[in-house]
Amino acid sequence: MGNFENINSAVKLLSDQVSVGSLSHCNQKGDPYPSGEELSKIVDLCYAIFFPGFFGDNTSVNSDTIQYHIGVNVEKLYIKLSEQLYAGMCFDSENDKCGGDLKQEAQAMASEFVGTLPGIREILSTDVEAIFRGDPAAKNYGEIILAYPGLKAIVNYRIAHSLLLLGANPLIPRMITEKAHSLTGIDIHPGATIGRYFAIDHGTGIVIGETTIIGENVKLYQGVTLGARSFPADENNIIIKGILRHPIIEDNVVIYAGATILGRVTIGHDSVVGANTWVTTDLPAGSKVTI
Amino acid sequence: MGNFENINSAVKLLSDQVSVGSLSHCNQKGDPYPSGEELSKIVDLCYAIFFPGFFGDNTSVNSDTIQYHIGVNVEKLYIKLSEQLYAGMCFDSENDKCGGDLKQEAQAMASEFVGTLPGIREILSTDVEAIFRGDPAAKNYGEIILAYPGLKAIVNYRIAHSLLLLGANPLIPRMITEKAHSLTGIDIHPGATIGRYFAIDHGTGIVIGETTIIGENVKLYQGVTLGARSFPADENNIIIKGILRHPIIEDNVVIYAGATILGRVTIGHDSVVGANTWVTTDLPAGSKVTI
Amino acid sequence: MGNFENINSAVKLLSDQVSVGSLSHCNQKGDPYPSGEELSKIVDLCYAIFFPGFFGDNTSVNSDTIQYHIGVNVEKLYIKLSEQLYAGMCFDSENDKCGGDLKQEAQAMASEFVGTLPGIREILSTDVEAIFRGDPAAKNYGEIILAYPGLKAIVNYRIAHSLLLLGANPLIPRMITEKAHSLTGIDIHPGATIGRYFAIDHGTGIVIGETTIIGENVKLYQGVTLGARSFPADENNIIIKGILRHPIIEDNVVIYAGATILGRVTIGHDSVVGANTWVTTDLPAGSKVTI
Amino acid sequence: MGNFENINSAVKLLSDQVSVGSLSHCNQKGDPYPSGEELSKIVDLCYAIFFPGFFGDNTSVNSDTIQYHIGVNVEKLYIKLSEQLYAGMCFDSENDKCGGDLKQEAQAMASEFVGTLPGIREILSTDVEAIFRGDPAAKNYGEIILAYPGLKAIVNYRIAHSLLLLGANPLIPRMITEKAHSLTGIDIHPGATIGRYFAIDHGTGIVIGETTIIGENVKLYQGVTLGARSFPADENNIIIKGILRHPIIEDNVVIYAGATILGRVTIGHDSVVGANTWVTTDLPAGSKVTI
Amino acid sequence: MGNFENINSAVKLLSDQVSVGSLSHCNQKGDPYPSGEELSKIVDLCYAIFFPGFFGDNTSVNSDTIQYHIGVNVEKLYIKLSEQLYAGMCFDSENDKCGGDLKQEAQAMASEFVGTLPGIREILSTDVEAIFRGDPAAKNYGEIILAYPGLKAIVNYRIAHSLLLLGANPLIPRMITEKAHSLTGIDIHPGATIGRYFAIDHGTGIVIGETTIIGENVKLYQGVTLGARSFPADENNIIIKGILRHPIIEDNVVIYAGATILGRVTIGHDSVVGANTWVTTDLPAGSKVTI
Amino acid sequence: MGNFENINSAVKLLSDQVSVGSLSHCNQKGDPYPSGEELSKIVDLCYAIFFPGFFGDNTSVNSDTIQYHIGVNVEKLYIKLSEQLYAGMCFDSENDKCGGDLKQEAQAMASEFVGTLPGIREILSTDVEAIFRGDPAAKNYGEIILAYPGLKAIVNYRIAHSLLLLGANPLIPRMITEKAHSLTGIDIHPGATIGRYFAIDHGTGIVIGETTIIGENVKLYQGVTLGARSFPADENNIIIKGILRHPIIEDNVVIYAGATILGRVTIGHDSVVGANTWVTTDLPAGSKVTI
Repeated sequence: MGNFENINSAVKLLSDQVSVGSLSHCNQKGDPYPSGEELSKIVDLCYAIFFPGFFGDNTSVNSDTIQYHIGVNVEKLYIKLSEQLYAGMCFDSENDKCGGDLKQEAQAMASEFVGTLPGIREILSTDVEAIFRGDPAAKNYGEIILAYPGLKAIVNYRIAHSLLLLGANPLIPRMITEKAHSLTGIDIHPGATIGRYFAIDHGTGIVIGETTIIGENVKLYQGVTLGARSFPADENNIIIKGILRHPIIEDNVVIYAGATILGRVTIGHDSVVGANTWVTTDLPAGSKVTI
Repeated sequence: MGNFENINSAVKLLSDQVSVGSLSHCNQKGDPYPSGEELSKIVDLCYAIFFPGFFGDNTSVNSDTIQYHIGVNVEKLYIKLSEQLYAGMCFDSENDKCGGDLKQEAQAMASEFVGTLPGIREILSTDVEAIFRGDPAAKNYGEIILAYPGLKAIVNYRIAHSLLLLGANPLIPRMITEKAHSLTGIDIHPGATIGRYFAIDHGTGIVIGETTIIGENVKLYQGVTLGARSFPADENNIIIKGILRHPIIEDNVVIYAGATILGRVTIGHDSVVGANTWVTTDLPAGSKVTI
Repeated sequence: MGNFENINSAVKLLSDQVSVGSLSHCNQKGDPYPSGEELSKIVDLCYAIFFPGFFGDNTSVNSDTIQYHIGVNVEKLYIKLSEQLYAGMCFDSENDKCGGDLKQEAQAMASEFVGTLPGIREILSTDVEAIFRGDPAAKNYGEIILAYPGLKAIVNYRIAHSLLLLGANPLIPRMITEKAHSLTGIDIHPGATIGRYFAIDHGTGIVIGETTIIGENVKLYQGVTLGARSFPADENNIIIKGILRHPIIEDNVVIYAGATILGRVTIGHDSVVGANTWVTTDLPAGSKVTI
Repeated sequence: MGNFENINSAVKLLSDQVSVGSLSHCNQKGDPYPSGEELSKIVDLCYAIFFPGFFGDNTSVNSDTIQYHIGVNVEKLYIKLSEQLYAGMCFDSENDKCGGDLKQEAQAMASEFVGTLPGIREILSTDVEAIFRGDPAAKNYGEIILAYPGLKAIVNYRIAHSLLLLGANPLIPRMITEKAHSLTGIDIHPGATIGRYFAIDHGTGIVIGETTIIGENVKLYQGVTLGARSFPADENNIIIKGILRHPIIEDNVVIYAGATILGRVTIGHDSVVGANTWVTTDLPAGSKVTI
Repeated sequence: MGNFENINSAVKLLSDQVSVGSLSHCNQKGDPYPSGEELSKIVDLCYAIFFPGFFGDNTSVNSDTIQYHIGVNVEKLYIKLSEQLYAGMCFDSENDKCGGDLKQEAQAMASEFVGTLPGIREILSTDVEAIFRGDPAAKNYGEIILAYPGLKAIVNYRIAHSLLLLGANPLIPRMITEKAHSLTGIDIHPGATIGRYFAIDHGTGIVIGETTIIGENVKLYQGVTLGARSFPADENNIIIKGILRHPIIEDNVVIYAGATILGRVTIGHDSVVGANTWVTTDLPAGSKVTI
Repeated sequence: MGNFENINSAVKLLSDQVSVGSLSHCNQKGDPYPSGEELSKIVDLCYAIFFPGFFGDNTSVNSDTIQYHIGVNVEKLYIKLSEQLYAGMCFDSENDKCGGDLKQEAQAMASEFVGTLPGIREILSTDVEAIFRGDPAAKNYGEIILAYPGLKAIVNYRIAHSLLLLGANPLIPRMITEKAHSLTGIDIHPGATIGRYFAIDHGTGIVIGETTIIGENVKLYQGVTLGARSFPADENNIIIKGILRHPIIEDNVVIYAGATILGRVTIGHDSVVGANTWVTTDLPAGSKVTI
């Protein structure tokens, strides 16, 4: 039948190794694979650990039982994360010899990550407090923890950033921040450095680039871009990777909706950057910029 | 083993009551809990009731059977919503004595909400009509109902606003509008007041604040902010909550992409606010503002 | 009981045929129905076919087995797509006589679409390459394929555009691009024409209108609008549909974040449109526009 | 690699058309297929219709709402059953021209089946009563309806028998009784004829053959066989199908555990057949047989 | 259309209150309901608690983590069981005033049941040992725990019996043993009393009646019936419920396949009852009965 | 609160290492584990391979596409089976050093098993034919393949037996036959040897012991036991394992319902063993035994 010949010939073309080229990925049989679904579960476990009683299927946490719940969730996290970190190690073509040593390395890395959880939660508590203090519409912490997209983006970023520092394949943290990006429209690169008491309001459209540095007690509104100004290329016209190209935001800065700050410029502490402004130069401490 | 000691010590730290602090939530055993998943089902039931035959697993609705489908869906909605409203009542620490009376109160509130459904659907039909009239790309109502993010944001807002007016814990309506925000990038606070024939085009990045008032026949494009200008603080430098701080948009106003209107200003009826404009003062009726 | 009377009376009102009006859809019993869930599966199958080994539950693809996987996935795609195309044909009230002929037409259309898959994959490989070349943060193709929202929006657009050209009910391609819109905040109308080597960075807030034409090697940043300037109405004040009203972007153009280009204007090749600019007139080739 | 060559060569052998022979089934693309899962849902819907409030996800049935629930469930049943009856019609190789007429025939048959539901429920109410009266351990009807395997086997049989009488492909009713067989160990052929007030106790191991006739008010215990004695073959030594070869059990008979009754014999009314007995001849009314 | 009229008229008949009669169950809105699915989860939790590391999704149990897993599982069990016990209390029409007191009673009962878990596990360890000692095909305990239907029937029985003793609505334990009956063909009434070191081999077809008493170290093979001989009726010909009508099996008895023991007879300790035998009288200790 | 103290104390008792004893299983972190769910999927894949077009989610198999489907299913089977075989190797405490070598051994074993699939299918085709020839109620092969429990038990047995011969941990094949036992009430030990053209009718209650040998063209009815007569014990009164203790059934034997054959006796070819008979001695060829 005509339809079917059409299909068979397409299958042949689509299976052609040359035509597939670099769009296909050849896994070793049985090796684990970076999985968006598994990473979502890992993030969910982190939520259940950071905010016990708010998240997790165990909504009956109390002081008597919290240790059981945290224990089980941390252990699940350790196992799932070990596997995904190992999958990340196996993913790159350079590491074509996936095996026992990498697996142990991944387990050690997952264990180290678990060790950073108490510290991450401590910072997140400052973020929640900052969001609450700055939003007249926020009724209590619970509302922020359960419903604020800004916090969601920050949580995923802090998890991803910690994994990046521990040496995970950058794909893993990137997939974690992209999940938050998809849900919130807030795009924070895992490589950015962000201090305590960080607040985001509304948030849709925010972009925070890879080499951005943000101090303590900074607040961003929707549509803010902390981006790069240009991408220097080498003599072969290939973009040079890894250059410090995003802004430095010092402590106690507020950046209003739609502001665009580009390049390795420094916004001095206690500045206010007005909505829809366009900043490509350093600003001294205490500046106030408006359109 | 090293990894495991690491994990055990993290569990101990993370279970520490002081360290968890206000990031945990202590439920009474067996009490219901505000559930994002349940609220999604509630919204889905509203869709099946508002747009029978378009949504719901019963895509065989016709004039003979519509009463069966509406009947079953309304009843499911009533049961699920009663539980979530009750969960909202139990959620705040002030209401630590969850019980029978609150449960009956929640059921009465859910019943009242059901009573508002015919009215909400009537308004939604004006919204659909407004979107259709204003979009050259829209082929028919079905396309708008099935595929337009703007309508999705409006539907969730109208549900959430109605629940807020009935006295639900504000967390519940907020979670409902945040669901639409996550899916569409359109952030409408449940507290806003919005008239009939309301249209949103594209929509990503729209922010409509808590005390905004929008008249009839208003249209917004993507990236429009109807926000607050400043947050007055009291003598202790704590932001004063509840102030009327967002714009009033009168009837027959169009606001193009990226426009920013801040503060308790009034945009007079039949005005056109151009793309990327910045408005912080009242505009008389019939104004036309552009960059 | 009071609650229940309330509910019963609401059911009666909501089931009233007149009140439901055009918000309901009356399906023939047993006819298929355009299904967001099914369309998601269709898109997932396309991903598994375009990027074998990266997507699909068969993560063990290699040169020996690729033909099995492609074969099974193409066949599933053909069956599911036939059904959804047929559902689209049955959807409009004009086509109230759903039946065998339309079903065969739908199967032929699905078969034609399968025939376009190799070509779509070839173009997508240029898109991936363009994204990689232009992003200093991209480590390898895998990261782009697995984690970049810009690519996701492009893939869904290219699928949807191909279906539109083959004559599918426009609702179907629209639902496909809206899925990407919801996940990425990037809103590309299926009717737009977009050339090879197309790159999007970050992307949240991008809007590309129905009659836009984009050449080869074009790059867009977040918040770019390629929109219509006005909607001419006829003597009855009804918007005229189908007018060419969106920009033409020639080859090798870069448009930075937040730029707004409105109306049927032409941006000449090798131009650079700066961030937050506002363009409503033609630009000659090689232009550089900034605020 | 050795393992893989092994696999590839097995795939080749297993795909060989001759070797597959009659163990494969060649479906028309897109035609429905008799589905165990769908038949389970059909049976579940029958349960929700026969025993409202006991089964179905709508456990809030009351006199106000019962009509909604019955209405929705009957309609779902009609749609699903139409499809499965149609699938049955398409299944046999004789019917290689599946299409519109058969589909309408299937819908008419499903509609007829729906018409028999009130009658089936009426008979089932006599079965429930009979089980209750005869079991000292039964506390109330609810226990029987929710937990007694005997009733489950009877319900599935009565559904299957009704479908067989309406002319469904015998595969469909057979799959329905086999589901009960698997769950209960009670094997009733859909072709058997069974009167009102039928009771089964424990039930595991019961076999009731295709041409069995059972009167009213009969009770069977576990392990009872109502079977055939011999299978006459024709001159080619091929078993002759369709011969009346199973027992006739008249009204008010009790058959105790493990009794075996073989062949077209008649057990006269008001008889008692003792446990582990072996009966291959007619028994007059009022007989009492024991080991 | 003819089909549809048929359906509507069936709906009307089926919704008729009189015709539904005692086959329907009228729940209070929102009250919990005895749920087979929930009871399955409760049994699964018991398995995870009795045999940690063999069952549960937490297959990484070790001496460090066992307390976390047991803790979480016991708590989940407590919550789910409280609800089901409460549902059982509300189920019977006599208890039409479901409410707070019953809920607390149910929680207390669930808590008491939890207190019996260590004892049940201790007895189950004797059952596992008995099965292992008596089966030449058993390789180790793990095989018995994971794959032996006899053990499954015993576990469900011991759970159900304990609930019955605590005063649960008999429907709940009955549903639990019926689950095992359906999976294994072994039908043990929750009311039976069974001692330690109880072994079942193969098991299909076993029936153990409500008032049976079984001593320690008893072994049963498939098809054994421990049943009632007759059901005395009162003057109104209604069966008298609650009479002691099943056998007493003393310690160290083996009963081979297909044996049938009926009535309140006593099988003396250390007896062997041969396969397919028929026993309706007392047997002295040390008896050996064969066909 | 009283309930909770109760729970906490039970948790402590249940977590006690000594009390758990041999009822717990201590897995290495991350090692795979014999999983009933995974084994079910493995059996389902075998069904899709043996009976293409009857089973599998790909019900559109035809001569053009069969190779794709077989290819994908065989590969999935290989991967899943490798993991479960490896899990079996790791399961026994003796093999406490799970690792790379065992993993490769498991993969080689899975590959060998795949190599036996064509042969198994060939034998199964004889079984289907035998069932069809012997059952007057069977309309066609499809009915047998889709609905006959006897075939289901045979398929699982033939898979399990093949795995046992290849040296799998006996737990794995045992779990596979137990699945069929649970669904059909037919209990065939994986160790039995069964020839071609094997037919089972009804089947509930059949037991076929570990060392049974069955020739070609044998038919069994429900309730047949091929069991052991006694279990000789050694001087310590421990049952000696591995003794040949079950019957040998030669070619062309029919065994009717409820027959019991015990011990290492030989039933000569072309014999007929009548229903409910009891056989513990050799029978010469051509025997006919009845009660």
